[in-house]
Amino acid sequence: MKLHILGCHSATPRSTVFPSSQLLEINNELLLIDAGEGMQIQLRKYKHKFNKIQHIFISHLHGDHFFGLVGFLSSLRLIGRDKPIHIYAPTGLKAIIELQFKLTQTDINYPLFFHELTSPESELILDTDRFSVKTIPLEHRIYANGFLIQEKPALRKLNIEAVKQYPEIETWAYHNLKRGKDFISEDGSVIPNEKLTLPPPPPKSYAYCSDTIYKPDIIPLINGIDLLYHEATFLEKHKDLAAKTKHSTAKQAAKIAKDSGVKSLVLGHFSSRYPDESLFKKEAAELFKNVDIAQEGKTFEV
Amino acid sequence: MKLHILGCHSATPRSTVFPSSQLLEINNELLLIDAGEGMQIQLRKYKHKFNKIQHIFISHLHGDHFFGLVGFLSSLRLIGRDKPIHIYAPTGLKAIIELQFKLTQTDINYPLFFHELTSPESELILDTDRFSVKTIPLEHRIYANGFLIQEKPALRKLNIEAVKQYPEIETWAYHNLKRGKDFISEDGSVIPNEKLTLPPPPPKSYAYCSDTIYKPDIIPLINGIDLLYHEATFLEKHKDLAAKTKHSTAKQAAKIAKDSGVKSLVLGHFSSRYPDESLFKKEAAELFKNVDIAQEGKTFEV
Repeated sequence: MKLHILGCHSATPRSTVFPSSQLLEINNELLLIDAGEGMQIQLRKYKHKFNKIQHIFISHLHGDHFFGLVGFLSSLRLIGRDKPIHIYAPTGLKAIIELQFKLTQTDINYPLFFHELTSPESELILDTDRFSVKTIPLEHRIYANGFLIQEKPALRKLNIEAVKQYPEIETWAYHNLKRGKDFISEDGSVIPNEKLTLPPPPPKSYAYCSDTIYKPDIIPLINGIDLLYHEATFLEKHKDLAAKTKHSTAKQAAKIAKDSGVKSLVLGHFSSRYPDESLFKKEAAELFKNVDIAQEGKTFEV
Repeated sequence: MKLHILGCHSATPRSTVFPSSQLLEINNELLLIDAGEGMQIQLRKYKHKFNKIQHIFISHLHGDHFFGLVGFLSSLRLIGRDKPIHIYAPTGLKAIIELQFKLTQTDINYPLFFHELTSPESELILDTDRFSVKTIPLEHRIYANGFLIQEKPALRKLNIEAVKQYPEIETWAYHNLKRGKDFISEDGSVIPNEKLTLPPPPPKSYAYCSDTIYKPDIIPLINGIDLLYHEATFLEKHKDLAAKTKHSTAKQAAKIAKDSGVKSLVLGHFSSRYPDESLFKKEAAELFKNVDIAQEGKTFEV
């Protein structure tokens, strides 16, 4: 699992600074999380294939989190997309996109599904063989969700050296071994699975929390996850402004990370009022050491 | 009058290549013509002041000509705009922008006026002291207009050396002299205006024609203007594709320029299928010598 930052600044795009948008890479698939203006420019710049995206998650309907979506969906049509696209977003985005397609006389030639989010509680919104996605209810000036993406345990790995010591284990048995079953030979004797296989790497988990006021309610949802991306629009010296605009400070993000025991923290959604973004890291590191700051084009291993 | 290119490519934005958007600078004002995705990134990159824009002209409702507008209008709110914005666009754009402002709970804090265009005939849509704007009906897959911007004659310049030879001409008389009136002294004798003033520079005119099939009907409208920007999505070897998609070739754009006796031609809206854009210029120059190609960041003196 890898996190690729396309944009991690608040408000408006500039030449090298883009509003919220990121990709979570799981196996060979890319989950697109938020779609600020210019995200398709960033996809091309960092050579991410448009066609690896199948699921799009939009946290809330502020322009700096979705103005890039309609252009991306239009471009998919131009490049001859045929696989479906699923969009998980607050109610309203469907109307915005469909009105533009209607008035621009755009026939989308791929299946496009909207999954409109309205619940104030966390809900499971996607469940595949490899991962699941749940919402993380946030508190902002408008209805907003974060997203928790959890890998499912991978198959166990065959310990080929061990397997070869038992000539009775034929290749047709591998399928069950990888799924953790013991081997039972024709005479009824049992070879325990752990003698024949190795455990898979532990499943990874990632949470995206932007935009939100400091909200300790989310702690149980993200408890012990591998990587948390949390917004830090302001520094602590502007905590009143953060509260007023329903954003967080770097210190508040660090407190969430610490109290939920996550393994590491990435900060983003920086206000352009701060010329030196290393101050966000410095402030957060006082509470939570394993912290880094997002940056356009940067990749984090989860 | 100067033309600043923000974007001049068809379809989708890439790192250095942006869809249609340009600024016409008249005195100290910037007219924004089309607003493809990322146009506000380009405004910042080339250091054009957002607040110098008061009038926005949208040729047609294909995304590569307006997807950047909503982000720009939102940014104006963030930077505390208070002067009005006027948008001249086909019917529908108002609904697209207003739905997004409603669902994003955005209160626009400056007066925003939409002037919806529906006429199939050329019409005068803006008339100020310094310039006028008329539509140029185009033919595309969707209702589309080009725009003709014509400066009004400036005031005549006082010939100070000449004026000083007549002590009876006091400064209160300058106002009328600049407006071309003769000076009449108290004894009734007349000093002809041309003895006292110099002619102003001739008024300039500019036309933007994109997107359109080859349409010789527009020739009378743009007859003898200083600068024509005409789309050239394709080269002549793809003229069938141009006709099918209702676009023009470089040769067709050159023929329009030649037949309307314009002083110079700029080509734009290039399809990304051509890696070498100098071929557009080469093809057009066979018919019309004073041709250049648009490029992001380039400025043309009209």
